Amino acid sequence: MIFTKDEYLSRLSKVKKIMDQKNMDVVILTDPSNMNYLTGYDGWSFYVPQGIIVALDLSEPIWFGRRQDSKGAKVTTYLQDKNIIYYPEDFIQAPPRHPYDFVSSFIHENNWANKNIGVEMDAYYYTAENHYRLTSTCPNVNFSDATLLVNWIRLIKSENEINYMREGAKLVEAGMMTAYENIKPGVKQSYVAGKIQNSLIGGNEEINIGGEYAGLTTILASGVSASASHLTPKDNLFNNNEGTIIELAGVKHRYHCPLSRTVYCGKPDTKISDTMKITNEGVEQAISTIKPGKTAHDVAVAFWSVLEKNGIEKDSRLGYAIGVGYPPDWGEHTMSIRKNDMTILQPNVTFHMIAGMWMDTWGLEVSESINVTENGCELLCNLSRNLHIVN
Amino acid sequence: MIFTKDEYLSRLSKVKKIMDQKNMDVVILTDPSNMNYLTGYDGWSFYVPQGIIVALDLSEPIWFGRRQDSKGAKVTTYLQDKNIIYYPEDFIQAPPRHPYDFVSSFIHENNWANKNIGVEMDAYYYTAENHYRLTSTCPNVNFSDATLLVNWIRLIKSENEINYMREGAKLVEAGMMTAYENIKPGVKQSYVAGKIQNSLIGGNEEINIGGEYAGLTTILASGVSASASHLTPKDNLFNNNEGTIIELAGVKHRYHCPLSRTVYCGKPDTKISDTMKITNEGVEQAISTIKPGKTAHDVAVAFWSVLEKNGIEKDSRLGYAIGVGYPPDWGEHTMSIRKNDMTILQPNVTFHMIAGMWMDTWGLEVSESINVTENGCELLCNLSRNLHIVN
Repeated sequence: MIFTKDEYLSRLSKVKKIMDQKNMDVVILTDPSNMNYLTGYDGWSFYVPQGIIVALDLSEPIWFGRRQDSKGAKVTTYLQDKNIIYYPEDFIQAPPRHPYDFVSSFIHENNWANKNIGVEMDAYYYTAENHYRLTSTCPNVNFSDATLLVNWIRLIKSENEINYMREGAKLVEAGMMTAYENIKPGVKQSYVAGKIQNSLIGGNEEINIGGEYAGLTTILASGVSASASHLTPKDNLFNNNEGTIIELAGVKHRYHCPLSRTVYCGKPDTKISDTMKITNEGVEQAISTIKPGKTAHDVAVAFWSVLEKNGIEKDSRLGYAIGVGYPPDWGEHTMSIRKNDMTILQPNVTFHMIAGMWMDTWGLEVSESINVTENGCELLCNLSRNLHIVN
Repeated sequence: MIFTKDEYLSRLSKVKKIMDQKNMDVVILTDPSNMNYLTGYDGWSFYVPQGIIVALDLSEPIWFGRRQDSKGAKVTTYLQDKNIIYYPEDFIQAPPRHPYDFVSSFIHENNWANKNIGVEMDAYYYTAENHYRLTSTCPNVNFSDATLLVNWIRLIKSENEINYMREGAKLVEAGMMTAYENIKPGVKQSYVAGKIQNSLIGGNEEINIGGEYAGLTTILASGVSASASHLTPKDNLFNNNEGTIIELAGVKHRYHCPLSRTVYCGKPDTKISDTMKITNEGVEQAISTIKPGKTAHDVAVAFWSVLEKNGIEKDSRLGYAIGVGYPPDWGEHTMSIRKNDMTILQPNVTFHMIAGMWMDTWGLEVSESINVTENGCELLCNLSRNLHIVN
């Protein structure tokens, strides 16, 4: 187990407290990060319907999923066998049969068919069809929206959680150094991306730990493709006089530490080097603002004040809460670092502050993974934010 | 462009033909594989709402998504700028605002508010909330289910598509050989997983092509964890007298070629070696059955006849159609290789035949990616299906 059973049960009691406040008897959770957070479940099985059911009248959660994945639930969770249930294989991708018909039967069997049930309406993998199956077969259930209910509880981390993110930091630094060492004009992006993956997952002798797959793959894009935010490495060659944006995460026990930097082959023109300088000034201003009691809005204002002074526009947010993650994302979907997000920073709130400057025909990125401390903040990584120049 | 515009338009015309038959004026597609198939769009941006709209009264599709990703649509698709639309950044993870309010406005602006609109009710990333936003704001739209409409069109591949899968085959063979070369007692799983990723994405000098991230990450699990189907590598060490299941895919231009094998450290007991032998006999029997005119059911019967003769049970399906894929999956969700799936095999139908034998405390896997030919089938990879023994 990655955490003690006590830590899982303390998370569960926070969930139940909110359920009680919101008058929910039962919640069904499908976000794989929330499943992991409450039970430890860890498998790449979220491509088929699965979830965790928390009920006020049950002491521990129920895991449900495909039969072959139920063994993974036994291996990776603290749950007793009786709390791990599965639907038959002939429900898999065989319409009109559907796994949520099984979930519906389970609701009826447990006498929850006239209860208040929360579902994560906007979570990954809770499809419109899942909801249709439940609502059409449980007409007396009062369904309400439990989106982000667990996510908000995840905002403040325990010391154990932050230690895993610190291990992620070592991995992502190794990954970024591998990028720096291998990017050269004439080399394929895919060649470098393979080496980066090797560092992120295999580690190296110095750090002596390995990592895991990330909620997002390696983002690496050069030249005009760096003007877009989420393009991925191909067999294209690195060219002279082009910038390359790189966004990675080191992952330990599903806890993410993301990091972005920009590499330039050749001598950058002043447009790029000036934008980098101003962006970094904004990032520094933002970092110096971070402490308990300040809001996400305050941090954003500090950053944009520098941009506005220099006449630079950026309409995308500056960051978001991070922690446990599964594809397709490593963000927690709660606090965003942007104007008018009035979330108050507290110790052990962790977020990815990413200044993505996606311009018309080029782009820059720089980021830090940040832990709010008693008096300010801790940068999880330690790596210059300047353009990395390859000559 | 990965395919000619003509190839994309030919795919589009097949979609429109089915829409016409099903009396759908418009379809909204959110499965990233379907988005890619119809437009070429390729970015890891599916963690925020996005999609493709196909309308009978429009000659080409509309891409919609987040503003910063619209640049990726310009780089990777054949679409004209006017067919790439985006919602404001302040719709991102900022409830009660939601990107589907933008989609709803677009429906009204285009005078589709009393039309028949198909949505992929059970596709990845089409959440219950997305559907709720549309149905509650477009009360006069007749919504119907377009799940799998495009997926079924993807079943039969063009020669270009199969060539990309053949490139994937070279990459996945390289990845599996890397696993074979690096698995040894005392070595970390994560170390080997890093090397595998390096081969799958970076390629090697011999094949001289690179690959891409896969729809599923590297599945690699040893000992009792191999009894589960979807566990992933950690810092655990390989041990003597343990089997390790490995499932990988080589990916080129998003086309997948998956491959599974089993490695054993030490001398396998007869339970394992006998099960491997019988499983391989079943796989051979199934392969010899494949040809146009046979059904998925026929292939399954051939496999299970060998298992049943030997008293071995397996309740999970034997395979599924493959091609374009994005996380969380590389399967096409149409044909499954199992009894009572009466899909008729035709030339250029491609599927992953995977014999996953997940037993009580151990497991085996062996698989082939297969292309149906005029007279039989082509195995995309060429690698012994026997247990790979590490002494």
